[in-house]
Amino acid sequence: MSTIAEFARASREASRLLAASPAAKRQQVLQLLADQLQSARTEVLAANEQDVAAARAKGQGDALIDRLTLTPARLDQLATAVRNIAAQADPVGEIVEQRTRADGLELARMRVPLGVIAMIFEARPNVTIDAAALCLKSGNAAILRGGSEAICSNRVLASMVRASLDAAGLPTDAVQLMPTTERSDLLELLRCDESIDLVIPRGGEGLIRFVAEHSRIPVIRHYKGVCHLFVDQDADLDLALRVLLDGKVSRPAVCNALETLLVDAPIAAQFLPRVAEALGKRGVGMVACPRARAFLATARDATDADWDREYLDLMISVRVVDGLDEAMAHISRHGSLHTEVIITRDAARAQRFQREVDASAVMWNASSRFNDGGELGLGAEIGISTTKIHAYGAMGLAALTTQKWLVSGDGHIRHPELL
Amino acid sequence: MSTIAEFARASREASRLLAASPAAKRQQVLQLLADQLQSARTEVLAANEQDVAAARAKGQGDALIDRLTLTPARLDQLATAVRNIAAQADPVGEIVEQRTRADGLELARMRVPLGVIAMIFEARPNVTIDAAALCLKSGNAAILRGGSEAICSNRVLASMVRASLDAAGLPTDAVQLMPTTERSDLLELLRCDESIDLVIPRGGEGLIRFVAEHSRIPVIRHYKGVCHLFVDQDADLDLALRVLLDGKVSRPAVCNALETLLVDAPIAAQFLPRVAEALGKRGVGMVACPRARAFLATARDATDADWDREYLDLMISVRVVDGLDEAMAHISRHGSLHTEVIITRDAARAQRFQREVDASAVMWNASSRFNDGGELGLGAEIGISTTKIHAYGAMGLAALTTQKWLVSGDGHIRHPELL
Repeated sequence: MSTIAEFARASREASRLLAASPAAKRQQVLQLLADQLQSARTEVLAANEQDVAAARAKGQGDALIDRLTLTPARLDQLATAVRNIAAQADPVGEIVEQRTRADGLELARMRVPLGVIAMIFEARPNVTIDAAALCLKSGNAAILRGGSEAICSNRVLASMVRASLDAAGLPTDAVQLMPTTERSDLLELLRCDESIDLVIPRGGEGLIRFVAEHSRIPVIRHYKGVCHLFVDQDADLDLALRVLLDGKVSRPAVCNALETLLVDAPIAAQFLPRVAEALGKRGVGMVACPRARAFLATARDATDADWDREYLDLMISVRVVDGLDEAMAHISRHGSLHTEVIITRDAARAQRFQREVDASAVMWNASSRFNDGGELGLGAEIGISTTKIHAYGAMGLAALTTQKWLVSGDGHIRHPELL
Repeated sequence: MSTIAEFARASREASRLLAASPAAKRQQVLQLLADQLQSARTEVLAANEQDVAAARAKGQGDALIDRLTLTPARLDQLATAVRNIAAQADPVGEIVEQRTRADGLELARMRVPLGVIAMIFEARPNVTIDAAALCLKSGNAAILRGGSEAICSNRVLASMVRASLDAAGLPTDAVQLMPTTERSDLLELLRCDESIDLVIPRGGEGLIRFVAEHSRIPVIRHYKGVCHLFVDQDADLDLALRVLLDGKVSRPAVCNALETLLVDAPIAAQFLPRVAEALGKRGVGMVACPRARAFLATARDATDADWDREYLDLMISVRVVDGLDEAMAHISRHGSLHTEVIITRDAARAQRFQREVDASAVMWNASSRFNDGGELGLGAEIGISTTKIHAYGAMGLAALTTQKWLVSGDGHIRHPELL
């Protein structure tokens, strides 16, 4: 057996012990970990400085350096995040459904951990802690494979998690950091389908496509969020503007931010000048279709490719459409199954939009920014899925579990006539 | 774009229309299909005779010929199965959860179809109808790829489904039969991850491993069912014998039949002679560990490989174990995550077994044969999953859906302070 296969098998073994462990022990690990993140911060920050220095020496850009950098404040936030995860209800062992058949056979469904989850991520070292905490809370072993930029930070953080596991009497291999960041080792890891149950890549589209293409293990995919706001002819335009601004400017770099505005033709002349003013004031650039451009002096012409663009920046694509059907056709063609919004006072049209548009969350008179684990009541999220297998949308602790049947009888059999 | 990619894309297009279609139309398709299966049986039987003749000419075995053969009675059963699926509750559009936040924002989760499901199967032509009916009932488009042995039967059956779709005013491409049974075309189909959401292989382990290895689309895996019965020292032995016989002899060729008997040491001398007599009378052969052989005159010595064997026949492996922990360790090593059973009067041990044993269904004093969609109240099943991603165990209509969020507000935004 190869080194990587043995490494993955150690996670599988640990996952069995972890799944059978009492909730209190897993809880204890998280508390110890949160404490350590604050008490042993000097060690973490020193390792992180090494990573940052190496990244600067390599000439990495400011955005990457920012994602890579840990500070005392960020470590405090991370400790708080771990305590919040610890405070969530324990999903393991929850009975989600229960009934007794007419013949007295008792059926129940119990939530159980998935087993072993591999997280593949890039420069953010905080994912090491986030992912470990969510996996442990849900009774899963975790294999963590961060980017080479963060290797020193990740080693210290992962060893903190393992020390916490050890102190609580749980197997340290319940959380393992990949010993190398070689691509060939990652490829080998992605073939360990006997030992790993789920792969969650977190990062840019390139990373996710690479993992999805090479994995023999199921992969949660989240390519991008091209979220649309459709302002229907019966919209309250003040409300529409409010939801547009929240979706575009409150945090443009996140996946539930808006990328495209679709405006119903009958209100274009009235609404678009207000859009131009409000977005212009906030420094949002625009590309637009010819009909929209008539009302948007500063917009440049949209190219075909613009309708598929995830700007993650202060930019928006604007198009005038003829009614709900054209808006839905546009979304069906260019949407990314993430978040879509309709603004209207017409309940029938809103319901049709909510029912027919294919996205993990469909909003009516509410901001796209609500498609978020915390806002939806799921607690911290480990990722967002834009494919429909296993999970669709924000993934909280429940998405890291599955359900098994417990069937209890009194000698119940199916074919007494054969005995 | 290749022919197969275009073929898959036609399914994707049809799936969008299907997902938005009223339940009544999908219902109508199933009723028309059931009627046709009975009224146009001559045509189906003629095509099936061609397949059977070709299989005989090739020297195929009796088991394959039996799986391949359709008869008037089997067509009637198939029509009944379609009517039963039609009679199940419609899963599409079901609101599974609903609540209002303190700020008035309304959250709901709605069940929606997965999209496009590819079924890869072998010689049984009835899967064409079963799979099409379950996919249509759950609002999914289906791509069907049967074995070459059944190609004439499958063509007639698929064209019946398509004629029923057409008569109900739904797109015929909602159900497509792969035009060829070339392996190269199957490989290409398994790469169409933009157009297909889920692949369900149904057949032998070789087929399933082939599909899992080559698919870029998520695959429901069901390798085998090596199901154990553990008879604890506090078991009611009459009850244990009853559950053993039902699990082993009522239908040995199915995946929820028993393959291994584990007997707790303190009761081996009392229980095993009764096992030998009861199984012997029903023609069940035995392989056994040395301690069990002492009580089983006709058993041969078990080899290491026997503990992983899925006999699907009148054979069983028997082992004496020292208590619950050894039984669970054996199951953890040799089980297939399918169905496991404990027989005991001791509630604490039963609960530990049910909680800790990893299998899609864990029975206490009840037969393994209850791990079945119909018995568990799920209705007809499209397959059984022995991996934990998306579905674990029997998959009914709900397993062919996912859930999207509907969020409805009154201009709700996340950051009013920024406006």
